[in-house]
Amino acid sequence: MDIKLYTEQGRSALLFHIELELQKQISRLDSPRTKAFHEMLTYHMGWTGEGAGPEATGKRIRPLMVLLACLASSGIEGADETWQSALPAAAAVELVHNFSLVHDDIQDNSDKRRGRPTTWVKWGAPMAINVGDALFVISNQAIIDLKEHYPADVVVKAAEILHNTCLELTRGQFLDMSYEKRADLGVDDYWPMVAGKTAALLSASCHIGSLLGGADDPTQEAYRSFGHYLGLAFQVQDDILGIWGDEALTGKSAASDLVEGKKSLPVLAGLSTNGHFAARWRQGSIRATEVQELARVLASEGGYEKANAAAKQMTDLALMSLREVDPQGEAGEALFELADSLLKRSQ
Amino acid sequence: MDIKLYTEQGRSALLFHIELELQKQISRLDSPRTKAFHEMLTYHMGWTGEGAGPEATGKRIRPLMVLLACLASSGIEGADETWQSALPAAAAVELVHNFSLVHDDIQDNSDKRRGRPTTWVKWGAPMAINVGDALFVISNQAIIDLKEHYPADVVVKAAEILHNTCLELTRGQFLDMSYEKRADLGVDDYWPMVAGKTAALLSASCHIGSLLGGADDPTQEAYRSFGHYLGLAFQVQDDILGIWGDEALTGKSAASDLVEGKKSLPVLAGLSTNGHFAARWRQGSIRATEVQELARVLASEGGYEKANAAAKQMTDLALMSLREVDPQGEAGEALFELADSLLKRSQ
Repeated sequence: MDIKLYTEQGRSALLFHIELELQKQISRLDSPRTKAFHEMLTYHMGWTGEGAGPEATGKRIRPLMVLLACLASSGIEGADETWQSALPAAAAVELVHNFSLVHDDIQDNSDKRRGRPTTWVKWGAPMAINVGDALFVISNQAIIDLKEHYPADVVVKAAEILHNTCLELTRGQFLDMSYEKRADLGVDDYWPMVAGKTAALLSASCHIGSLLGGADDPTQEAYRSFGHYLGLAFQVQDDILGIWGDEALTGKSAASDLVEGKKSLPVLAGLSTNGHFAARWRQGSIRATEVQELARVLASEGGYEKANAAAKQMTDLALMSLREVDPQGEAGEALFELADSLLKRSQ
Repeated sequence: MDIKLYTEQGRSALLFHIELELQKQISRLDSPRTKAFHEMLTYHMGWTGEGAGPEATGKRIRPLMVLLACLASSGIEGADETWQSALPAAAAVELVHNFSLVHDDIQDNSDKRRGRPTTWVKWGAPMAINVGDALFVISNQAIIDLKEHYPADVVVKAAEILHNTCLELTRGQFLDMSYEKRADLGVDDYWPMVAGKTAALLSASCHIGSLLGGADDPTQEAYRSFGHYLGLAFQVQDDILGIWGDEALTGKSAASDLVEGKKSLPVLAGLSTNGHFAARWRQGSIRATEVQELARVLASEGGYEKANAAAKQMTDLALMSLREVDPQGEAGEALFELADSLLKRSQ
């Protein structure tokens, strides 16, 4: 039975098979001597331990992108073998994402992830470093599993895209960490960081998906571009929500990006303006009680408007790329919908 | 000019080209925004910063193994293009080794590596985690570079060997860390740990080298086996030196494995005996002043003898595998010599 992507059930079926593939990949560590190690990975993935369940797994957006891009570029409407063959690649990008989360949480000293204690909090940083490494290794093994269904040169190209993306991730991570101590940053410093941290992997997901769907080089390039701009647009949106989202403004959550000192796009735009916002920012950490007023100041000094314009621009570029590839059938519609839902989270 | 491997100059030439290839691979991060990041990697590799130089680079044994196994199994005596094409694979295994060292040093809280401050000491653990990740990513990119000179199916196989090996590394690392708190360990727990931590990568080096040299499957298997047993023999030797080596015994160095509480083979053998050594070990940390006497006790209770017998057995198995593949020409002789020099370090 072919999966019907326009139904809620169809989407759930893809997600179900993504989860199965991830579990299969990670079961490589499920051997007698490494049970406890395996459990650390399954905990992080959201399958075991306290709080396990759909809330703890994350949305699996990247692997979904791989499968949808594959289907939409293959032209074979919903053929099961098309997306099933691509499952190892879908797992690979999600494993890369999760490897980076585990290491991020250590680097940022974050104690919660998706509402649960982070891996390093539960097992210590040394073990958590190794958990991240293992997720990374398994992503490499997953991409090689494509050889069951694709010619070796396609496998090599998929692996190459994945590895190049991972280098972008480490670049973005380096920039992010090095920015923490810098006071001289401008809007120009923003894009290379988020290109690495957020856009690279979404870009790779769409690129690899279209490669596996059999798209020609220019079409792959456009899919890549779609993922790239989608990632940038998504990140800018996230930045806006982090300051003017309901939670950030009402102060119910301490997670406001202003309190955390995050060098987000509105903040960098505000700093360039050298107004009241910039003056307060340079005096040191923002308190939770100041967030509402400071967000208002930043908005009045153009921070909101500039970020919003950038988000709109990136969204337009993303949708332009997607229309360019003319994604086929239900998967194509699903891609437009997914882009839409990612970019309209605030509404 | 073909490199003559029987000369000191010939060996130096290989090492020189390994170093060039490593530098080329790592230069992927040499871009304007990531200069400081690039510098962290070149520091760890021993090329830049205080104390840079041959002493700081390590011996590059694994990449040398790749090239020698490639040459010895190709049958083309010293042909330059043979080993030059394999250089990216040589770089890949060395990059994996160095990624694991950077993360190891954080995990073990080690502040010195090859006589210099470790990466995390210089730039902090968050940056150092990212440095290790980047070295790992670049190793993946290096192995894909083989596509310039080999058919895609050979590249896929080489990548597969490398990735499987990396999973072994994380397994070994997990066992090593989990053993720290365990008091119930026996000799049987030793081999799976060192198989992952030491033998896997030497094994992969020989395996990949012979694959690239064009060896058939059974020959590749024997090369793999040679590297595996060589790694085990080497580790047991290292364990013996860590307790009864000159430095350890005279107490000049505080690095005696007994002081560090390392679960080495002689120690595990001693614990199984349940004699005076085991009784003292279970009372808690060993002081430097006790090392000489305790080493004597452990030897008198069979710890030295048992470890020595194991080292001899592993050495025999390694040499048997090497003779089985009948490595050709100067590279073959160089392999025997390298094995010899690795296994007779104490003399």
